[in-house]
Amino acid sequence: MAVLKVHGAVFSTASMRVFACLYEKDLDFQFVPIDMKAGQHKSETFLSLNPFGQVPALEVGDQKLFESRAITQYIAEEYADKGTQLTCPGKPLAPLLVWKEVEAHQFDPVASKLNWELVFKPMFGMTADPAVVEENEAKLGKVLDIYEARLAQSKYLACDCFTLADMHHLPNLHYLMGTPVKKLFDSRPHVSAWAANISSRPAWSKVVAMQKQ
Amino acid sequence: MAVLKVHGAVFSTASMRVFACLYEKDLDFQFVPIDMKAGQHKSETFLSLNPFGQVPALEVGDQKLFESRAITQYIAEEYADKGTQLTCPGKPLAPLLVWKEVEAHQFDPVASKLNWELVFKPMFGMTADPAVVEENEAKLGKVLDIYEARLAQSKYLACDCFTLADMHHLPNLHYLMGTPVKKLFDSRPHVSAWAANISSRPAWSKVVAMQKQ
Ligand SMILES: N[C@@H](CCC(=O)N[C@@H](CS)C(=O)NCC(=O)O)C(=O)O
Ligand SMILES: N[C@@H](CCC(=O)N[C@@H](CS)C(=O)NCC(=O)O)C(=O)O
Repeated sequence: MAVLKVHGAVFSTASMRVFACLYEKDLDFQFVPIDMKAGQHKSETFLSLNPFGQVPALEVGDQKLFESRAITQYIAEEYADKGTQLTCPGKPLAPLLVWKEVEAHQFDPVASKLNWELVFKPMFGMTADPAVVEENEAKLGKVLDIYEARLAQSKYLACDCFTLADMHHLPNLHYLMGTPVKKLFDSRPHVSAWAANISSRPAWSKVVAMQKQ
Repeated sequence: MAVLKVHGAVFSTASMRVFACLYEKDLDFQFVPIDMKAGQHKSETFLSLNPFGQVPALEVGDQKLFESRAITQYIAEEYADKGTQLTCPGKPLAPLLVWKEVEAHQFDPVASKLNWELVFKPMFGMTADPAVVEENEAKLGKVLDIYEARLAQSKYLACDCFTLADMHHLPNLHYLMGTPVKKLFDSRPHVSAWAANISSRPAWSKVVAMQKQ
């Protein structure tokens, strides 16, 4: 089997998405840390892996992939018989397609903005903008109302098992849970149970552990 | 075959993405126009199709789909043997996955902001914000530099045939070409040839014709 080489950073949400997938799939991989503070993601070597100069990037044999959700989809399809399935086998195709897009287009933009303000800006010595926080909290609340209704009917977002659609939320969810935005999850019982459930997966603990090394 | 019922609006980029797919696939469909000016996309009936209250939504048999790219992917897989293939059969999987994500995460956010400022705000009697335009023109230029390099090596983004990755660009591309942003395409020969090529597809002409009825 070709070696899987992941270029990324342990605190980067997009990299964490890919690490989660590799651990769920029980795949050995080589982690190549990219020093973002030193601007290594804009070096010529890194740009030959991802011309957009963003982590993560995956090398497998002579193939080069970037964009975290392209990488997780690739891994799920290419290694379908390993580890967690991450799809809805034997079930209609539509819900998985829909809920993956919901994460990418409804949840991620809002969650990323909140994490930028409340987690990363403070980490870099900058101050959060209260107006941006307020606007995006309101937006996230509306998104989570829809999740609450969905998760009242279905244990996971796409079907009755854990899939890419759930997994893709984990990095942003992880950071939000360390901020006052946590209240938006806690006040919605099905969302809160789902968040606790997917965050307690052994594969996810391994991703979090990478940050402590 | 189950009837395909598309709820959408002819000027909506996300709806146009789905119309393009249906015409490429040569599928009959029933179009249900949603009167967005009247707020019909926030009506209870529409929210039962898409709880996020956005067009488009697709009904097929008892299945309900939303999110334009989930719908196009569904159609491409479910009707693989009809019309244009829209994938890269017999080719490695990775490039199609990667370039679909590039459209969604690198091109669309910037292109949508420019179209909001330069096309939709004026349509609704509002004024474009020059600072937002300038910032996003600079971002789009950088994205198109990467497209120029890719399209110098490959006739289409994902492989040597037209796929979902190219098709998903068409609605935003169409509107941008009617604005001064057109210059960013014109000044890059491979990008400009690609844009002209994909815009001249018969299926796309049918989408544009829907706006003239
Ligand atoms: N849509 C991309 C986003 C990747 C991304 O934004 N990566 C961040 C770290 S989480 C990065 O490299 N930022 C540096 C930059 O954009 O210059 C993906 O999902 O992989
Ligand atoms: N990510 C969604 C975006 C859908 C979307 O933004 N639709 C617009 C029209 S192009 C809409 O319904 N806007 C009304 C609203 O957001 O309230 C998709 O691709 O389907």
